[in-house]
Amino acid sequence: MSNDTLQVRRIAIDTYHENVAYLNRDCGIYRAEGFQALSKIQISTNGTRVLAVLNVVDDASIVQPGELGLSEQAFKQLNAAEGSLVTVNHAEPPTSMDAVRRKINGEQLTQNDFIAITQDIVESRYSKMEMAAFLVATGQNGLDRDELLYLTRAMLQSGDTMNWHESLVADKHCIGGIPGNRTSMLVVPIVAAHGMLIPKTSSRAITSPAGTADTMEMFSEVNLTPDQLHAIVRKERGCLAWGGTARLAPVDDMLISVERPLGIDSQGQMVASILSKKLAAGSTHLIIDIPVGPTAKVRQMRQALALRKLFEFVGDRLNLHLEVMITDGRQPVGRGIGPVLEARDVMQVLQNDPDAPADLRQKSLLLAGRIIEFDPDVRGGQGYAIARDILESGRACEKMNAIIQAQGAKVVDLSPGSLCFEVTACCDGVVTNIDNFQMAKIARLAGAPMMKKAGVDLLKKLGAPVKQGEILYRIHAEFPADFKFAQDQALQNNGYMIGSKQDILKPLIAF
Amino acid sequence: MSNDTLQVRRIAIDTYHENVAYLNRDCGIYRAEGFQALSKIQISTNGTRVLAVLNVVDDASIVQPGELGLSEQAFKQLNAAEGSLVTVNHAEPPTSMDAVRRKINGEQLTQNDFIAITQDIVESRYSKMEMAAFLVATGQNGLDRDELLYLTRAMLQSGDTMNWHESLVADKHCIGGIPGNRTSMLVVPIVAAHGMLIPKTSSRAITSPAGTADTMEMFSEVNLTPDQLHAIVRKERGCLAWGGTARLAPVDDMLISVERPLGIDSQGQMVASILSKKLAAGSTHLIIDIPVGPTAKVRQMRQALALRKLFEFVGDRLNLHLEVMITDGRQPVGRGIGPVLEARDVMQVLQNDPDAPADLRQKSLLLAGRIIEFDPDVRGGQGYAIARDILESGRACEKMNAIIQAQGAKVVDLSPGSLCFEVTACCDGVVTNIDNFQMAKIARLAGAPMMKKAGVDLLKKLGAPVKQGEILYRIHAEFPADFKFAQDQALQNNGYMIGSKQDILKPLIAF
Repeated sequence: MSNDTLQVRRIAIDTYHENVAYLNRDCGIYRAEGFQALSKIQISTNGTRVLAVLNVVDDASIVQPGELGLSEQAFKQLNAAEGSLVTVNHAEPPTSMDAVRRKINGEQLTQNDFIAITQDIVESRYSKMEMAAFLVATGQNGLDRDELLYLTRAMLQSGDTMNWHESLVADKHCIGGIPGNRTSMLVVPIVAAHGMLIPKTSSRAITSPAGTADTMEMFSEVNLTPDQLHAIVRKERGCLAWGGTARLAPVDDMLISVERPLGIDSQGQMVASILSKKLAAGSTHLIIDIPVGPTAKVRQMRQALALRKLFEFVGDRLNLHLEVMITDGRQPVGRGIGPVLEARDVMQVLQNDPDAPADLRQKSLLLAGRIIEFDPDVRGGQGYAIARDILESGRACEKMNAIIQAQGAKVVDLSPGSLCFEVTACCDGVVTNIDNFQMAKIARLAGAPMMKKAGVDLLKKLGAPVKQGEILYRIHAEFPADFKFAQDQALQNNGYMIGSKQDILKPLIAF
Repeated sequence: MSNDTLQVRRIAIDTYHENVAYLNRDCGIYRAEGFQALSKIQISTNGTRVLAVLNVVDDASIVQPGELGLSEQAFKQLNAAEGSLVTVNHAEPPTSMDAVRRKINGEQLTQNDFIAITQDIVESRYSKMEMAAFLVATGQNGLDRDELLYLTRAMLQSGDTMNWHESLVADKHCIGGIPGNRTSMLVVPIVAAHGMLIPKTSSRAITSPAGTADTMEMFSEVNLTPDQLHAIVRKERGCLAWGGTARLAPVDDMLISVERPLGIDSQGQMVASILSKKLAAGSTHLIIDIPVGPTAKVRQMRQALALRKLFEFVGDRLNLHLEVMITDGRQPVGRGIGPVLEARDVMQVLQNDPDAPADLRQKSLLLAGRIIEFDPDVRGGQGYAIARDILESGRACEKMNAIIQAQGAKVVDLSPGSLCFEVTACCDGVVTNIDNFQMAKIARLAGAPMMKKAGVDLLKKLGAPVKQGEILYRIHAEFPADFKFAQDQALQNNGYMIGSKQDILKPLIAF
């Protein structure tokens, strides 16, 4: 059958969570245009099949007529040597798109529908367009509670699961949206020092200025194999690792790559995403942190309560002991935003530095206390005091150092980026509002989290009195283009409001 | 500001209705990864701004660190010479995505929302993901009738309009889905011979085996400038041209490039698509053909009626005299499927050949008769007889030849593709069912419409008696890979059912 084969060629183009194939327009075997309108082709070799979107190439130096180019993602997935012979076929739309179309028509889907959809997505059978169709159709009011349960279960089944062989595996998760909120790096050493198992796997930041994995990376390795992870956790009772190596609910990452740029963020999908990842990581006991505030993900108490019920409904049915904490999401937590600056805050708290950010310390103790109360031997209401004792005695700091050593310590350099811009108060008054979203955006534009030393350092928080010209925060960057992006953004909207005492943004609940 | 500019480079990759930019991972000015997760960048030079999805390149022979590559679409849109200096910025999501998100949340959108959305789409500010989100959110029951009117108006305004300076400009349109349905090539010469203005602009096939423009191209040029079009229509009262040169409702083509591969096909979007194109083409009187059948786009009479009401509602409000004909969509019309084979059928009817396909002739006369009755001087009920007289007298054929000459006649070669495969009856009986969708798919896989001589030639239609081994249809192809795709597909499902007389698929209405 060599007369209908093409030689596969790796094209060093990173097409970010989407397979792309490149076919020369003058290909003597397959007519590119015939495939292109239908958008996807199937590439086969030795029993492996890969689906890809087709781009037509008019430059033989990129792809010759007898070749088929594959983007890095697609080439890796095909798993064949360069020059291998492949055949090309019209790709049928993924079968499970029928279910998506039924969902668009308002029908309820079954457990099997969701399993088929997640299976097709994880095998890269969905284009980004198709994933967008699924996300919109299941967004907002698109999923009832049973469907949400089915989706969570299907996402869980789409990947591997970890088993820690203990009856109590604790974990915590924040739904996100609050910059600087690095509580995990305090909660894990406190809880592990108490002796409970807390094998925390975290994400890297996708569209936020830092994830726990990005910040932990300032101190130690975070890319650990499942075997390394098990060994560390057995010894230290906890870890702070990147979850990406373990293939936990991988369909989640693929959906996020479409959800984030679209800016759609439905409560149902958030619940399915978080719970499937946690269950895959082997958690049995979970605290969910839902910050509420006008620039947080959840803006009103009634939304927070509705979200809590969804978490509880799905958690209960999947045998996860789950508790929700609704927290103050009016402003960033701590002072630093970005890996280095957040790492500095965390270390100040661990070292009981009197200058340590009080809000980060307090929130971490509350969370750790709630987790410690999962321990049957702890009396209800004693968790906070135990957590505080562990922190103040230095045992949390010791445990953190032990985890860092176990994961592979790095030379620590917590100096922020040398390009620095100071944003100052326009007038006398007090800080009445800090926009979480805008602060995250500025830190992100400054280069965080890729550029570890980039970010924003807040000198004034809500309620702080300021004089005209006084510094509100510093922007740090390492790269001139980033520095300019962040500076321009801050000049356009610095994210702060200065006013009088009675205008200070009130918390939505008493925390 | 030359220290933050890159040299633009045209990358000969056709990314099909989506702008893609290629940045080398080692770019010294912009960090590729920082942009990639957010999906889109804005490229600026001399006041022109273009949005593009970012792909990261690790091969300096494609894009060097100091360059920014642009796919053919993006390069054309930027309209700058290769080597021009460009700056890169983070792209804000298109403002109108806020409206799309409101639609996802179930809100009703305003006229201005739809204008903003179509404007952003036509200026390539939407990624395919974002278009998919819009299409799903407005699909099915997503649009009420008023919103449909707003969308149609917004699509109309997204491009140019033609003005024929006459009070009656006739047109016809079929909603599609029935292979071989080339009635326009008969209706136009009949109606123009009657003296009515019928300047027909048609599409090329996108996912069907032939569009009117593809088939007309067998006889004459179809890519005409608006000036040429006006001159021809002034002289001959009609034309059969490709509508693509005129920039009529261009947002429609962009939405279709997402809608088709997704396989979502909502009635509302169909109405907006058809009516915006027809109004942009300057039509005042329009017949809409809705074929109904189990493998047609519209499968049940109640759906056809609901669709009719939608067409009427929007048509009336946009001052279009519109009538809907519900027609028999149980099987392909005529014998040929694919440009050459359909052109042959049309010529047989025009030349009053006794072997001409009777169904194509009859349907065309009914449609032409209805259009002729738009003429105030024609008595109600006389249209069909007038149309038949024009056809039988040879005046329709004369008019067609005149239009062909005016558009630029080609040397006609109606011989079908030399690779030929015969599909035969599995048993004795009568043809009880022919699957429109499957026949279109086979013809398409055989290479139609790109390969003009490719397609399917039906020897037996519904109700025809057949003996085992007798030929049902022939597949013609020009290209061996296509031939194999089509053959494999026909062997898997040949689209025909053979049974006994009482099993013959009944029409859903009396036509």
